[in-house]
Amino acid sequence: MTNSIATFEPTPRTKINRKPQRGSYDKAVVNAILDEGLICHIGFAVDEQPYVIPTAYCRVDEQLYIHGAPASRMLKTVREGINICLTVTLLDELVLARSAFNHSMNYRSVVVLGQATEVTDLDEKNLAMRALVEHIVPGRWEDSRQPTLKELKATLILVLPIEQVSAKIRSGPVIDDEDDYGLPYWAGLVPLPFSPGRPINDARLPDEVAAPAYALNYQRPVSAPES
Amino acid sequence: MTNSIATFEPTPRTKINRKPQRGSYDKAVVNAILDEGLICHIGFAVDEQPYVIPTAYCRVDEQLYIHGAPASRMLKTVREGINICLTVTLLDELVLARSAFNHSMNYRSVVVLGQATEVTDLDEKNLAMRALVEHIVPGRWEDSRQPTLKELKATLILVLPIEQVSAKIRSGPVIDDEDDYGLPYWAGLVPLPFSPGRPINDARLPDEVAAPAYALNYQRPVSAPES
Repeated sequence: MTNSIATFEPTPRTKINRKPQRGSYDKAVVNAILDEGLICHIGFAVDEQPYVIPTAYCRVDEQLYIHGAPASRMLKTVREGINICLTVTLLDELVLARSAFNHSMNYRSVVVLGQATEVTDLDEKNLAMRALVEHIVPGRWEDSRQPTLKELKATLILVLPIEQVSAKIRSGPVIDDEDDYGLPYWAGLVPLPFSPGRPINDARLPDEVAAPAYALNYQRPVSAPES
Repeated sequence: MTNSIATFEPTPRTKINRKPQRGSYDKAVVNAILDEGLICHIGFAVDEQPYVIPTAYCRVDEQLYIHGAPASRMLKTVREGINICLTVTLLDELVLARSAFNHSMNYRSVVVLGQATEVTDLDEKNLAMRALVEHIVPGRWEDSRQPTLKELKATLILVLPIEQVSAKIRSGPVIDDEDDYGLPYWAGLVPLPFSPGRPINDARLPDEVAAPAYALNYQRPVSAPES
């Protein structure tokens, strides 16, 4: 890790109030979730109306780059420098308890608050585009046609520092009321593993171009805490 | 369908401005996405700071019930009747184009705007809890211990009408610049199918209680438009 700070400082806005035992401010935990996720949901408000829009993102050291394409409404607003919230959620398992009330899900989520600004420097923009592609498919950048100046200019990328941040995690077994363990209902977990299918060749691909290993064996990074 | 209106009226807030060909206001399209999703992301603002929190939800006819547990901060605020945004995103495929610039993802998302209110009537709350459980695992409600009065009172459920709503969908193949089709890079789709694993029995389950079919063969509803 490039930074010696191993945990984030909770703020009144990022502090986990409900079920605080599920909260974490550990940098390794936060980064692992951010690195495993494929999309984030960005929240911002315009004229008192919140919007939540899914988009691509990636982490580079202590900041997040956000692909700005999805929402022209968001972009115009966020570029002015308003507060946003970026949330990444990984759904791991359904938790089927004996009681309806204790049904739950095992998940890992990260919430990052802050002000996003536009990346205008073209070199940084190119690095950010590289990081966005490599976040989704490591190895793909060198195996694709890289952006022209025109494409770089046409891409809107925002940057958000990872400072006000918290993770929230539920893992482990069903938790039922003690009186309910004797009930005749099945209880347990239904895992929701990440299981990509076989890549589908583009119809206009020449026969001699085979799918590369990064597509054939596509996986997300294992979300173990960094050492 | 219980309602004869087949499409929602776009408003200035729900109209898809960017890539409008990907937008839909078709009720069957919207409902299919809402019914297939497992979690939503709720956006709301407190003191000019937006928050985006994942939570469970379900659709019943023309409204959404939202499980209010995840965020005490949200709950206290939303109960007062502020504007929220509820977004459901299904990620279907990675789209690996020959050019880095044309990389994309195939997805289906729905954005619902409006004011959420708290469900206080205990009968409606019980129906909403049933719908929440059945949304995640059809058949589970009758095969679990149903809520006590105390549990109903301890559960916060919000209701949001499905009125201001739009869907956005990208599907189909890679779209590269015409000049790029001759490049030697592989291009195609990496499918991200929903592939639940085998259920894991709770450690305290008696030997004679076998995993039910709804857990062994767990799947989401097929997101075909309703007829």
